[in-house]
Amino acid sequence: MSRRLGPGTVEFTGDIRIESYAAIVGKKEKEGPLGDYFEHFEEDTTLGKPSWEKSETELQRRTFALALDRRSLSPSNIDMLFGGDLLNQCIASGYAFRETGLPFLGLYGACSTMALSLAMASAFCEGGAADRAAAITSSHFCAAERQYRFPLEYGGFRAPASQWTVTGSGCLIVSRGGKSPIRVRRASFGAVRDLGLTDMNNMGCAMAPAACDTLTRYFKDTGTSPKDYGAVVTGDLGKIGSEVFCDLCSREGYEVSNHLDCGKLIYDTESQKVGSGGSGCGCSASVLAAYFLPQLERGEMKSLLFMATGALMSPTSFQQGESIPGIAHLVFLESEKN
Amino acid sequence: MSRRLGPGTVEFTGDIRIESYAAIVGKKEKEGPLGDYFEHFEEDTTLGKPSWEKSETELQRRTFALALDRRSLSPSNIDMLFGGDLLNQCIASGYAFRETGLPFLGLYGACSTMALSLAMASAFCEGGAADRAAAITSSHFCAAERQYRFPLEYGGFRAPASQWTVTGSGCLIVSRGGKSPIRVRRASFGAVRDLGLTDMNNMGCAMAPAACDTLTRYFKDTGTSPKDYGAVVTGDLGKIGSEVFCDLCSREGYEVSNHLDCGKLIYDTESQKVGSGGSGCGCSASVLAAYFLPQLERGEMKSLLFMATGALMSPTSFQQGESIPGIAHLVFLESEKN
Repeated sequence: MSRRLGPGTVEFTGDIRIESYAAIVGKKEKEGPLGDYFEHFEEDTTLGKPSWEKSETELQRRTFALALDRRSLSPSNIDMLFGGDLLNQCIASGYAFRETGLPFLGLYGACSTMALSLAMASAFCEGGAADRAAAITSSHFCAAERQYRFPLEYGGFRAPASQWTVTGSGCLIVSRGGKSPIRVRRASFGAVRDLGLTDMNNMGCAMAPAACDTLTRYFKDTGTSPKDYGAVVTGDLGKIGSEVFCDLCSREGYEVSNHLDCGKLIYDTESQKVGSGGSGCGCSASVLAAYFLPQLERGEMKSLLFMATGALMSPTSFQQGESIPGIAHLVFLESEKN
Repeated sequence: MSRRLGPGTVEFTGDIRIESYAAIVGKKEKEGPLGDYFEHFEEDTTLGKPSWEKSETELQRRTFALALDRRSLSPSNIDMLFGGDLLNQCIASGYAFRETGLPFLGLYGACSTMALSLAMASAFCEGGAADRAAAITSSHFCAAERQYRFPLEYGGFRAPASQWTVTGSGCLIVSRGGKSPIRVRRASFGAVRDLGLTDMNNMGCAMAPAACDTLTRYFKDTGTSPKDYGAVVTGDLGKIGSEVFCDLCSREGYEVSNHLDCGKLIYDTESQKVGSGGSGCGCSASVLAAYFLPQLERGEMKSLLFMATGALMSPTSFQQGESIPGIAHLVFLESEKN
């Protein structure tokens, strides 16, 4: 049974673990600073499919299969799938699992979806509703560009503060009990925060207040502070958003000197020309699954707060002059490996 | 702690109840056969807002406030909000709660969202992650028409098998314990089913296989049959989809003679010229909250299976020649009122 530490903040007192995980990224991500950690990548980001949306669906399918394979699991070992993505009506995930026959719980948290789905899968396993559940998400640069901005063929210029949508997918398999040393200890579900920012090309800044809000709320609910964790990892604030985030946290009395951001880690912003860094559901998902979880599994890192951030706008809301609401969900992971 | 009866099927052994509920509909819904049950409606479906998307956001906001008021609750009594809608990036719900400061768990289940959010809120309350949670969804005819079909100004013709998106919202407040006689006993999360149908104007048919699949799986997992329930209520299969659904169930050995469909109930399909019936997240949400829950609360109905259905396609997937995957999530509600 979960222990409620505050509205939205939950301690998992049962034995909730990340039993398996996998990530697949595209060519550009493989060429970035984390290239050596991305064991699985697609040289051809069409994945042999006739549309970018279908490519993204295929990416989720392959990532799910990899996460199963890693522990010799089959789809029938999974009780439920928690998944979502950035595409209108979440078609990447909706279409990815229609052959599996597995119960599918669709989520929409924009780029926060990896943390949202992991936290939800953990809560379901903890509460007994599932013995083993998968959390999955993805993004694809080419599908996101034409939906949110311009078709690639248009060759539009990019603003310096903009971020580059990661082509990638991450899948985590959560279970009650098991041998994995990676424990899911707590989660904090965030509130929608909107400080009135309207620059579509600066999502990092729009999401930073939500990240600060969720993190400080979590610290207050748990009586902990940044130094109690190996790292505080945000999803995809990028260079500019990360600065704003650390500044906001500092004003709240928390110096997050152990902060890392998946959007900054995944690309070399200068040489890869990606503006402020990476973004998209697949950014934090692939960096968590390929870079951080192996470190926890080997005991090289003892704990981390994983906080994926999302911007809940749409091109329609932007065209209607609306500001950009942000959200951030947090999961506390701990390694039992010595 | 939940008891897992099968993959996706859960029995809530704790004391999970629907403590409060509310629905608001538009003018056309008020004029339909359930008009007398819709206590709250909006004569002006703009709700005073400058765009249909903002009108839908406002509709959710007002419905949430009504559900709170009914039991003299305030937002601070709610631990988490589970919400979603049909709009791209779920902006109706994403924008609706940015002033509340409440943890927001975004969902995408197309028109199945009322059952998905209710089942999730129940699982979270059962598992201890929340003491009290809200489940909310909506749809708006004018926002859906221009997103999925044509702008209203175009005056496009409607196919006879098409359905009419309900302007409406429903909000349920779920708690562990409390005085409400409406118990949430079980839930079954459905799998994505796709039989290859491609007619955008016949969503009912595309969703019927998913509804049959979830229902028959639930019956097998629980060892029950249609006669064990006061009614089997589907979300929005409409006239045509309902026929297909009952036929499919019959082939599986289940005669669902106590079947009712929210999409058939909400409009007079002949005089109101709505094709095969109502649809949209707000259809099953408003009919559940305004028509069925009061009957359970007063003890006039002893139990029902509420199964909202969704089509997980998008205009993009349709244009790319994809078929329409369906999904259905089920909740078993029981009245303790004599």
